[in-house]
Amino acid sequence: MIGVDWGTTSFRAFRIAADGSIRDRRTALRGILNIQNSKFADSLREEIGPWLAAGESHVLLSGMIGSRQGWKEAPYLPCPAGAPEIAAALVEIEFDWAQVKLVPGLSATDEAGVAEVMRGEETQVLGVLTAMGGSGLACLPGTHSKWTRVEGNRIVGFTTHMTGEAFGALRGHTILGRMMREGPADGAPFDAGVRRSGDPGGLLHHIFGARAEVLAGRLAETDAAAYLSGILIGHEVRAALDGRQGEVVHVIGSPDLTMLYARAISAHGGFAERHDGEAAARGLAWIGEHATWR
Amino acid sequence: MIGVDWGTTSFRAFRIAADGSIRDRRTALRGILNIQNSKFADSLREEIGPWLAAGESHVLLSGMIGSRQGWKEAPYLPCPAGAPEIAAALVEIEFDWAQVKLVPGLSATDEAGVAEVMRGEETQVLGVLTAMGGSGLACLPGTHSKWTRVEGNRIVGFTTHMTGEAFGALRGHTILGRMMREGPADGAPFDAGVRRSGDPGGLLHHIFGARAEVLAGRLAETDAAAYLSGILIGHEVRAALDGRQGEVVHVIGSPDLTMLYARAISAHGGFAERHDGEAAARGLAWIGEHATWR
Repeated sequence: MIGVDWGTTSFRAFRIAADGSIRDRRTALRGILNIQNSKFADSLREEIGPWLAAGESHVLLSGMIGSRQGWKEAPYLPCPAGAPEIAAALVEIEFDWAQVKLVPGLSATDEAGVAEVMRGEETQVLGVLTAMGGSGLACLPGTHSKWTRVEGNRIVGFTTHMTGEAFGALRGHTILGRMMREGPADGAPFDAGVRRSGDPGGLLHHIFGARAEVLAGRLAETDAAAYLSGILIGHEVRAALDGRQGEVVHVIGSPDLTMLYARAISAHGGFAERHDGEAAARGLAWIGEHATWR
Repeated sequence: MIGVDWGTTSFRAFRIAADGSIRDRRTALRGILNIQNSKFADSLREEIGPWLAAGESHVLLSGMIGSRQGWKEAPYLPCPAGAPEIAAALVEIEFDWAQVKLVPGLSATDEAGVAEVMRGEETQVLGVLTAMGGSGLACLPGTHSKWTRVEGNRIVGFTTHMTGEAFGALRGHTILGRMMREGPADGAPFDAGVRRSGDPGGLLHHIFGARAEVLAGRLAETDAAAYLSGILIGHEVRAALDGRQGEVVHVIGSPDLTMLYARAISAHGGFAERHDGEAAARGLAWIGEHATWR
């Protein structure tokens, strides 16, 4: 089969063998925001045409391609949901002679009853956690970080933290960014920011320190961005781990970002295990196995 | 004397009688960011020239006019500081025949030893608190909210919360703003946001609810900005009041903003007393009384 993790900014396709191993892969800067005039079918044909010509006919797409802004909307499926429930809710698309199906996003409510949604991350989480015993806590850091609880191979709940997007907005559009200069993202200033997140006063107070400490000559301009990043990631991790200290967190994503999260998780009393970005391929294979193909 | 609260975006001048009452006032959109080529003297002359011609010669300026980006830098004075200490640290400027002096900003460290600075707010806080017994807790909401502790007519410490600026950055430059439409700033959605700030999960999680609840059809697009505002102000107030429940908070600022803060303070167990924006005039008069004039 062919699995595609098709997000807002990127397109990653995998040709997957019957045993779940990856036979081939393609990556393109063809996220749904980069595609003009909704030419999703043309884009897909250009990217995976050779694999289709070679005999593949089962194509599974996950991510924002199934959103209202994507090719066709695959409505959110409520939690708890695992591969069988997701496979039963796939949305089919007309596409040449191949069978193309969209993975639905998931919805949930957090412990206070507030709405939650994810789209794409469910596939990555299932890809990693089914290989790790089918239960546990996963964190997918990024623009909108997701903390996901899995039990018996099903996603039972999750929370979103707007950490990456808040960092970009604060750095790019507040007084904090004006005194920041390029510097390393990790190291001692990041760790100092993580420690700072445990102090009294709250996040909105702590972030001001990224300015005041520079004004006071106690933080270099080249270290201020890493310090701010540590404060925000520290607050996310601290809130997400509240009452769960000592637990293993499966951190799924790019190596630079999972390294930062592993440091913050360790500082706040958790144990991080890092996983790379091919989690999506394993999740697509797992959902594909449960799907009904003609 | 003449007192001027001269900030980043606004200029507010007061002609103050010997008994401290305000004889006249002028407001202009002549904040330091609006003044070309550092023509501060020209601007001041145009605004208060008639009062100087009428015999005034003592001019006291507070706010960002005394910052590195202003007319001349008045270095930060460490806390604790009241009117006598501030009056002893005024910085004089050459200006025609009048005596013009700049009020210095204050510096402090918070309970974790992190640097803090304010410039302009010290004058407003002293203006209000000296009339209220000389001790208490003051909150000045805004772009950078300040929570200030006063004892025996001296500012002993303070913390900054970047609430207003964070709101602007999140609304203007993240996915949250894309689904917001104009609506009232107060009312039930604001209060719901304040309540939300008391839930588990942390600020970075709570703000995502301003999107997810709209997607779920449970929050109107016209209410999302007020809900986000309630979350942020709620987090600020909750952190600032931690361990101080039951205390009176003197909230100083514009009526619309102090009303929102009063609601959040009440929701988090404090008692708010609101004060208007002429606090600066009273503070300038009070510092002016302690100054040495030729």
